[in-house]
Amino acid sequence: MNEMIETILNHRSVRSFKDEPLTEEQIKIIISSAQSASTSSYIQAYSIIGVTDKKKKKKLAELAGNQSYVELNGHFFVFCADLYRHEVVGKMTGKDVISSIESTEKFMVALIDTALAAQNAALAAESMGLGICYIGGIRNNLEQVCKILKTPDRVIPLFGLAVGYPNKETTKKPRLPFEHVYHENEYCQDAEIYMKQLESYDQVVSSYYQERTMGKRKDTWTGQIANMLERQSRMYMKDFVQSKKMNLR
Amino acid sequence: MNEMIETILNHRSVRSFKDEPLTEEQIKIIISSAQSASTSSYIQAYSIIGVTDKKKKKKLAELAGNQSYVELNGHFFVFCADLYRHEVVGKMTGKDVISSIESTEKFMVALIDTALAAQNAALAAESMGLGICYIGGIRNNLEQVCKILKTPDRVIPLFGLAVGYPNKETTKKPRLPFEHVYHENEYCQDAEIYMKQLESYDQVVSSYYQERTMGKRKDTWTGQIANMLERQSRMYMKDFVQSKKMNLR
Repeated sequence: MNEMIETILNHRSVRSFKDEPLTEEQIKIIISSAQSASTSSYIQAYSIIGVTDKKKKKKLAELAGNQSYVELNGHFFVFCADLYRHEVVGKMTGKDVISSIESTEKFMVALIDTALAAQNAALAAESMGLGICYIGGIRNNLEQVCKILKTPDRVIPLFGLAVGYPNKETTKKPRLPFEHVYHENEYCQDAEIYMKQLESYDQVVSSYYQERTMGKRKDTWTGQIANMLERQSRMYMKDFVQSKKMNLR
Repeated sequence: MNEMIETILNHRSVRSFKDEPLTEEQIKIIISSAQSASTSSYIQAYSIIGVTDKKKKKKLAELAGNQSYVELNGHFFVFCADLYRHEVVGKMTGKDVISSIESTEKFMVALIDTALAAQNAALAAESMGLGICYIGGIRNNLEQVCKILKTPDRVIPLFGLAVGYPNKETTKKPRLPFEHVYHENEYCQDAEIYMKQLESYDQVVSSYYQERTMGKRKDTWTGQIANMLERQSRMYMKDFVQSKKMNLR
């Protein structure tokens, strides 16, 4: 196994960072890495905002549900799906690009492009001995986040990426069984097999939590996910995204 | 610069592969790498389908716009956003998760989760000396792709990933200027700066094409992107995604 695969398999989210800012050089490497990812038809439909202003970081940490590591880290990046750039391209070239950039297809393209770039950034950081944590919590209140970051229409902050030197070792959460995630030639819909795989995974996850909490926490994966989904969250998203003139047609 | 960052920065898409299938071991490493990516609240909202059946590969290559490398490669993966799994979780636990999994928020989560996993897979492959190419072309006709792969509702094949030993060296396409993609503290909307950056990038891209084609091709980035967006494509996507019971509310 090579070093890169070791880094990839060794990933765990870090939620406590040393008070040591990233260097300019590190930031440049992380952004260049992000930009080196594949992009759909060369569209490059994302922007990255590095937040260094202390007040802004504090406010973002609050909005993300009081996550201290959004404020306290080596650097905080916000990855944004960006089709505003392409609206400008339309203006510069005199071409009508609006229907296209308001389509669900291009909304999907922008999300995928942004995530591919972000994962390159995350791995570049990890390969330099830094820890990372994705912050979906910024989607709790995107109207506010957009105000803080002064993003135009057709730009949607998707998630933050907190990066820095880890304060402590964290553990790796077990993933779904290989056979459950990987299908050959067709999707296995056999209900019995499907549920058995989830049940056996529940045991793995439950053991993981028990070990980690000395028996206090026994959550299964299905239980945890069902609770999370039953609660519902960010149900304003459809309207919000459309108010930003994306995912409209 | 470490080896991982070198691999990341050295990425280029490969569109011609040697006739040498990946080993079981390589496939396992690629899938495990995909699964090691961060996942929003542990939701793991994706599945991966490896297509080895020759007829299916041929058909997918046609649907993707006659891209031969979809058929001829070391292995062809299809990455799918998957919330069907979570519908099953709802049934197993007796919780009502439907509103949640039909939301635009969870549609976004599934897309991001899938793309993060895919980029890990892509990099793991590249670190093993393999080449990769993302195939967005499968979105030309998802109804057909879903039939071939027998995916249930709430599963959307997002893109393919062709992997294999490269037949020839390809070149690296220049990316948008660093200052254009990376903002500090707020999104720079200054129209003059914004357009100047794109104009200077146009020159870089144009030189790249000229050099590569001995002067035959002189496309700028803005020109290329404007043409692509003006044409419109896959405008059926909104209805299609909603017919699969995602992005509904």
